[in-house]
This record gives sequence, C-alpha cells and structure tokens, in this order.
Amino acid sequence: MKTYKIAVIPGDGIGGEVMTEGIKVLDCYASLKGNIKFAYETFPWGCEYYLKTGKMMDDDGLEKLKKFDAILLGAVGFPNVPDHISLHGLLINIRQSFNQYINLRPVKLLPGAPCPLKGKGPQDIDFVVVRENVEGEYSGVGGIRFPDKPEEIALQTSVFTRKNTEKVMEYAFQLAEERNGKRKLTNVTKSNALNYSMVFWDKIFNETALKHQDIQTETIHVDAITMYFIQKPEAYDVLVASNLFGDIITDLGAALQGGLGFAASGNLNPEGEYPSMFEPVHGSAPVLAGKGVANPIAMVWTVKMMLDFLLKVEADEIITAVTQLLQEGESLTPDLGGTATTQEVGDAICGKLAKLI
Amino acid sequence: MKTYKIAVIPGDGIGGEVMTEGIKVLDCYASLKGNIKFAYETFPWGCEYYLKTGKMMDDDGLEKLKKFDAILLGAVGFPNVPDHISLHGLLINIRQSFNQYINLRPVKLLPGAPCPLKGKGPQDIDFVVVRENVEGEYSGVGGIRFPDKPEEIALQTSVFTRKNTEKVMEYAFQLAEERNGKRKLTNVTKSNALNYSMVFWDKIFNETALKHQDIQTETIHVDAITMYFIQKPEAYDVLVASNLFGDIITDLGAALQGGLGFAASGNLNPEGEYPSMFEPVHGSAPVLAGKGVANPIAMVWTVKMMLDFLLKVEADEIITAVTQLLQEGESLTPDLGGTATTQEVGDAICGKLAKLI
Ligand SMILES: CC(C)[C@H](C(=O)O)[C@@H](O)C(=O)O
Ligand SMILES: CC(C)[C@H](C(=O)O)[C@@H](O)C(=O)O
Repeated sequence: MKTYKIAVIPGDGIGGEVMTEGIKVLDCYASLKGNIKFAYETFPWGCEYYLKTGKMMDDDGLEKLKKFDAILLGAVGFPNVPDHISLHGLLINIRQSFNQYINLRPVKLLPGAPCPLKGKGPQDIDFVVVRENVEGEYSGVGGIRFPDKPEEIALQTSVFTRKNTEKVMEYAFQLAEERNGKRKLTNVTKSNALNYSMVFWDKIFNETALKHQDIQTETIHVDAITMYFIQKPEAYDVLVASNLFGDIITDLGAALQGGLGFAASGNLNPEGEYPSMFEPVHGSAPVLAGKGVANPIAMVWTVKMMLDFLLKVEADEIITAVTQLLQEGESLTPDLGGTATTQEVGDAICGKLAKLI
Repeated sequence: MKTYKIAVIPGDGIGGEVMTEGIKVLDCYASLKGNIKFAYETFPWGCEYYLKTGKMMDDDGLEKLKKFDAILLGAVGFPNVPDHISLHGLLINIRQSFNQYINLRPVKLLPGAPCPLKGKGPQDIDFVVVRENVEGEYSGVGGIRFPDKPEEIALQTSVFTRKNTEKVMEYAFQLAEERNGKRKLTNVTKSNALNYSMVFWDKIFNETALKHQDIQTETIHVDAITMYFIQKPEAYDVLVASNLFGDIITDLGAALQGGLGFAASGNLNPEGEYPSMFEPVHGSAPVLAGKGVANPIAMVWTVKMMLDFLLKVEADEIITAVTQLLQEGESLTPDLGGTATTQEVGDAICGKLAKLI
C-alpha cells in the first residue's frame, strides 16, 4: 500500500466546495483500486488569509509544500484583493518556485457536454496544450518610469531562456509521440511581430523538431490559431505555446469543451525535483460561493490528471464516469441545466466509479 | 468636386486582385455620389519587391506616402521572406512612423454570412475593437544574449507610454459615446500576470473613465474574453485592447463574423497629421493568388472604412450591397459556397450600389 501525501489549498470562493468533491473522488478511486492511499494536509492560504495576515501564504509556505507528493489547488481570487497581488503571491509563486515548467491543459469535448460550435462534436475537439509555465511573458520583469507624470512609461519584459524553452519543446514532442493521436505538434507563435522572443521560440522549436522527425509539425501565429480553433478544431493534437499564449488559447479551448466547468490543468515539474500542482482553470467565482451550485467536474478532471501523473496511469474511468453523468443528464449542476448540488455531483461520480473499477 | 489622393500598395499574393475590386467600388461610390473623386498612385512594394531589391519599400517610401490623403494596402507576405522582415519593413513601419495609433476593427456578422456559433445571429455579433497600434508589445525592443550558447536568453520588452495610452483610451471612450450602441466600453487586460504593463494600462483606462461617466465600463482579462466571445458575443459594444491583445481577439472576432473574408481594418491617425492606412485583415494567401477566387468583401469593407474616415460619412450603402449579395447567395466566391470570380463579386457590388445610392 503506497500513501501519497497531498497538500490541499482550497483557496477562495468556490475553491473549497469543489475541493471537497475532488478529494471525495480521489478517495473513492483509491479505495476501489485498493493498493493506494492519499493523506491530506490542508493549508488555509488565499485572499481571505491575505486580508487577515497581509500574506497570501506563510513565509515558509514553499518549505512546507516541498515535502508533499503533489499540491491540489481549488481557486484563488477575491474582489478586494488586486489580482496581481493574489496571483504573484501564491499561484504564480508556486509555479515558478517549484519549477513547474509545464502547464498541461487538455481540451476535450465529452459526449453530452454542450458544444458552442455548429457542426462540431466530440470527435472534432480533442487536443492538449503544452504551456510554458515559469518564464516568458510572466517573468515579472519590468517597471514604471516617471510614475503619474506626463512622460510616464511602463515596461514589461518577457524573458525566455534556451534551457527552459528546450525542455518545454522536448516535453511537447514526447507527448505528441506518446499520445494516441495524430502525431502532430503545432507551434503557437507570433514571430511576425515579436521579433526577438518569438523568433527565438520558433528557433528552439525547429531545432527540437530535428530530433523528432516522426512528428508532423506546423507553426501558426496565435491570432490565427484562435480563428482556426473555431473553424477546424479537428486539425489539432498537441500544441505548444508560451506562458501568455497558452493561457489565452486554453481559455478559448475551455469554451469549446463546454466552458470552464470542464477545464482542468496540471502544473508539472516532470522530473519530480519539486511537487507538481493541479488546479481547475475556473476562478473562485465569488458570486457562486457558499450556495452548493458550483460544478465540480473541472476539479474532478484535475484529480484525474494528478492520478495520471503520480501513478503513471490513465485514470480514464473518471472521464467515463463524468461522461455517463453528462449523457444521462441527471446529477448535473445548474450551469449544465441540472438541479443537482456540487456534493450530489461528486456522489454520483463515485457511484459510477464503483461500477467501472 | 473634391479629389482625394490615395496611395495604393497592392502588395503580395491576392493583394492585387482584391485591390482591383476595392478601387472599383470606390470609383462607383464616387461617381454615384457625384461630388468626390479619387486619384490613385500605385506602389509596387512588398515581398516580391524585396526579393528583387532587398527592400520592402523605397528608402524614401515614407516621404512619398506622406503626401497622400490615405493609403490602401492589399496584403503583405510571401513564403520566402521571413514574416518579421516583411512586416517590420512595411506594414509595422508605416503604422508606427505615421503614428497610426488606432487600429479599428469592426466585428459584425452580416445577415447571410456564415456564423460558426450555435444559437447566435447578426443581432448578437456586432462590436468594434479599438486596438493600440504603435507601441506596446510591438515596440520591437529586445535582444538575444549569448546567441546559440546553452545560456542563451531572449528578451522582448513591451513599451507603453502614458501619452499614447491616454489617446487610445480617449478615442475608445468617444467611440463608445458616438456609436449607436450599448454605450459600453470593455477594457481587455491581463494585469493579473503582466504586473507592470497591464497594471499601467488599467490605470489609464480607469483615469479616462472618470471623464466619461456616461459610459458603462468593465475590465476583463484577455484569456476570459476569448471565452466570452464564444459564449456571449452580444455582451460587447466597444472594446479597447493593446496591440497584441487586439490582434488576437480580432482574428477570433473574424471567425465569428464568417472568417477573414469579412475582416476589415483601419490604421488611423485620427488627427490627420499623417495619412491613415486601410487594409483587409486577411493575408496574401499565396495558394489562392492568380486564380481569381479570392473573396474581395473584406477589401470592399475596408474601402467603406476609408470613406467613413475621409469623408466623415457612414457609407453604409456598401454594407447593404454586400448583405444583399450574401442573402441572394449568387455572386459569391468559392469560400462562401459560390462560383463567382473576385471580379464578378466587385461588379455585383457596384450593381447593387447603383440602386442604393
Ligand atoms: C489567474 C491567472 C494569473 C492565471 C494565468 O494567467 O496563468 C489563470 O488565468 C490561468 O490560466 O491559470
Ligand atoms: C501581420 C501581422 C504583423 C499583423 C499584426 O499582428 O498586426 C496582422 O496579424 C494584423 O492583424 O494586422
């Protein structure tokens, strides 16, 4: 029996409610499989904590988190706390300090999930975005000169290193090889306008491609890709994108797969030198908080990604269980046209799992 | 009789073919109205010119262009010429040198145009994006340190000035006031991650909002807006975005309005210290070039934007003519399911105009 230690950060708003269901599904999965166990420790960090203590997480927070096998995050964000404080203080801090240089985001339309596009279905929308996650546009480098004067200037510098970019590209090519897909990797760029960073990015992509000649490659500008996602999502299998571009196209991807209620992500340190962190892409949605109406599917999908990563499995039973729920149409939250509570959805998924495992 | 001097840069690929139809429609419009005339001078600049001369445009190109009332551009780009060369040498050079600090892009689904979204129609998709067009992410500031060494680093710096940002915001608020719409302005940001440039951007937005309290405002992150464009395009009226974000969301917008065949733009110097430049958003599409199949509607719409700007009119007859074509379904190019040539579409639009003006 192997026990995995999970650091749980429910965070703000609906974070805690969906987290409860995520853990419920983890525990059901573990007890049905029989040979694994999860031990949790919960950290009360986030914006409420900040309003009380002036800190998004404890000073030795990273030290504490380091001991865990993985981190599960609910959602961070609160109306009274400026986003750039809450995020640089917790989410972006953990991503960068733990060198979680890959942000993996599947975009997959499940049968029964609402698709906004005419004439497209689950067979057309099934790709994964490999997003660079520790540098690039999110490096936090910059400044303001002559603040509030007429000659005020704001500077923000993207920083891309060869070392990290090579690792991201290599990861993406290997994923394209391992995935049972089109064996195709799409490079998302904007080298026609960003004449240093993205020209560099393309160069590393092309260098890495030479080592993976079995993978079909293409390079597409980020503006064009947003259009193609609408017009021909079936053209994509694995995409590799910078931190900012990956952020943008995965929110668009979330819309294609039925909304943020379905968007899961993993912030990975593939070598395991530090714990990886798993989080649903939806935010804290303060207006929904405390009502028991938040859709926990993204969190449950996130848990599946954690299982895949930690146990080196494909915990596809979880996706099957969610698909069954969608197809039956009962046990769905209001955003999906149902009347179930967050908790009832979690219970229903466990019920399905019990028959599938 | 007033004569307007137009500099014509057909450019590469399909640029010349659609330009011919654009000019045809301009001339019909002028002769039907009776009191205006256009005088053209054509410049052979672009990638073919570059391959012959090593230059995208003449050394004194800007000097030459300066004398015109406006510039009409077809498309620039060619497989053999790296994009960052062709664009920084011509398109981006003209935008920045002529201080065309506004890039205006209407996103409007015409009745009869193909919409990719379920349950949305022309009444839902009708907004305009005000894109900053001379600085920001496109400033071209940056460099590579330790080229090709393991420690190689690429830097790209976004530069935002208060002076220009204030002008862009002011323009956007005024447009929201003048437009017969929802009197709403949406600020597109990413201040949760870009902790200097976009925090600054939001600050100037909020300052400018104080002078326009009659306009409803909201601030939305660029990732989220791509999702909302799919889920609720009807929520938008005027949006203001940085150079890069405006680029991305207007390509997505183009998809919503039926594709690049419908996407027009104006690069404006509102004060008229320099000529403004009008261009369809589609590229040079080398594979379609020379076949007479390119859809000229985006170019014709671009001409309408030039008329609006130069003559201070609303040349809506042109949009009505295009809508009639779409609704009748004849005289459309193959991308819209028709069999007409580029030239036949131009002729048909002029035919309609003759009945409308
Ligand atoms: C909250 C924000 C900083 C974050 C990001 O931009 O990475 C979020 O949008 C995401 O996609 O995880
Ligand atoms: C060609 C490219 C540099 C340009 C841009 O990014 O501005 C284009 O995409 C546009 O939208 O006009």
